[in-house]
Amino acid sequence: MDTIDRLEAIEAIRQLKARYFRAIDTKDWAALAAVFAPGAEMDMTGEGSGVTRGAAAIAEYVRTCGIEPAETVHHGHNPEITITSDTAATGIWPMEDMLRWPEGTFALRTMHGYGHYHETYIRVDGVWLIQTLRLSRLRVDVEPA
Amino acid sequence: MDTIDRLEAIEAIRQLKARYFRAIDTKDWAALAAVFAPGAEMDMTGEGSGVTRGAAAIAEYVRTCGIEPAETVHHGHNPEITITSDTAATGIWPMEDMLRWPEGTFALRTMHGYGHYHETYIRVDGVWLIQTLRLSRLRVDVEPA
Amino acid sequence: MDTIDRLEAIEAIRQLKARYFRAIDTKDWAALAAVFAPGAEMDMTGEGSGVTRGAAAIAEYVRTCGIEPAETVHHGHNPEITITSDTAATGIWPMEDMLRWPEGTFALRTMHGYGHYHETYIRVDGVWLIQTLRLSRLRVDVEPA
Repeated sequence: MDTIDRLEAIEAIRQLKARYFRAIDTKDWAALAAVFAPGAEMDMTGEGSGVTRGAAAIAEYVRTCGIEPAETVHHGHNPEITITSDTAATGIWPMEDMLRWPEGTFALRTMHGYGHYHETYIRVDGVWLIQTLRLSRLRVDVEPA
Repeated sequence: MDTIDRLEAIEAIRQLKARYFRAIDTKDWAALAAVFAPGAEMDMTGEGSGVTRGAAAIAEYVRTCGIEPAETVHHGHNPEITITSDTAATGIWPMEDMLRWPEGTFALRTMHGYGHYHETYIRVDGVWLIQTLRLSRLRVDVEPA
Repeated sequence: MDTIDRLEAIEAIRQLKARYFRAIDTKDWAALAAVFAPGAEMDMTGEGSGVTRGAAAIAEYVRTCGIEPAETVHHGHNPEITITSDTAATGIWPMEDMLRWPEGTFALRTMHGYGHYHETYIRVDGVWLIQTLRLSRLRVDVEPA
């Protein structure tokens, strides 16, 4: 891939991830499903959860894992994105998430975490999509409900 | 617009917004006015304030809305920037702001907020500038003075 | 430098700084040394410390200044990067750092800071590296141990 195409792909993946964060924090589940490839995998084993497969199933997992009733803020910082072919790429994103639940909606009152998303991307019909996502943590603070 | 020009415009707008944040947090009001177009509009109706028009008036509004006496930190995260013509663009920026006031200077002791800037840009004499800015919030926490 | 080369250099420097942050927070001291030029200088006089010279010495300084026993999170936000020649560049990075020490390991329990990195870069054998780094602060909050 030449330099222009590579830079264009990196910018497309940055904006893909920006849509991911905005979809979660505005609770737009259709927009969230749309950033994942049909065969995508989300690995949340590090969060004490499992692996979810398929764009629609991932959006439904995120909705029902505690995020829907919460006020949430997810931020992605300066990423390391590597284009490995015309249709494949990898990325590491530093992240921070802050969640707060109204009384009676969840086992926690707040969660404040920091870590890295480790991701791969594929290009389907010219559009970059998240193919795999795994979250590793540097630190997580919780307050029980 | 071809791909190189589009990527160059996106980078210019990223750095424009970086100057916006740095100007506010270092209280450099001339530098703040310089990131806005002459006919710019800042819409803070979501903050319980109004719409301010004109680069100099916007810088003066920001200075006098409570920011001048405060220690402030404003951060912009990974944006969604779309170039819509040779001289026009739109952007959505996830943001976080943390303000703390010395005793006796303001009605609040602290404010900690999260949200999105919804912006448009115009290019005047080859230079990208902010044309409109509206802030929507995900969450705001305040402590009264 | 033409536009494509300039945009490629900016992207390389973004990813260089991303490796800097990830190396510190994952305590990978060899990876940290690798982001600095052989003759690099880190100026921490604003932190009440001094100037450290040389990539290996800088990594050792960061390791021993209190970071090794701490849980740390360092975030870099949207930067202002200027390419000044084929082999030289400057950058300003808004930053936030959060450190927490286990009891008995340090004079502080927590530190939470905000500020800007002021940096220069050089390109050595085609690879961009940090040549100088100085940290200025907007705000620092500490809790003693």
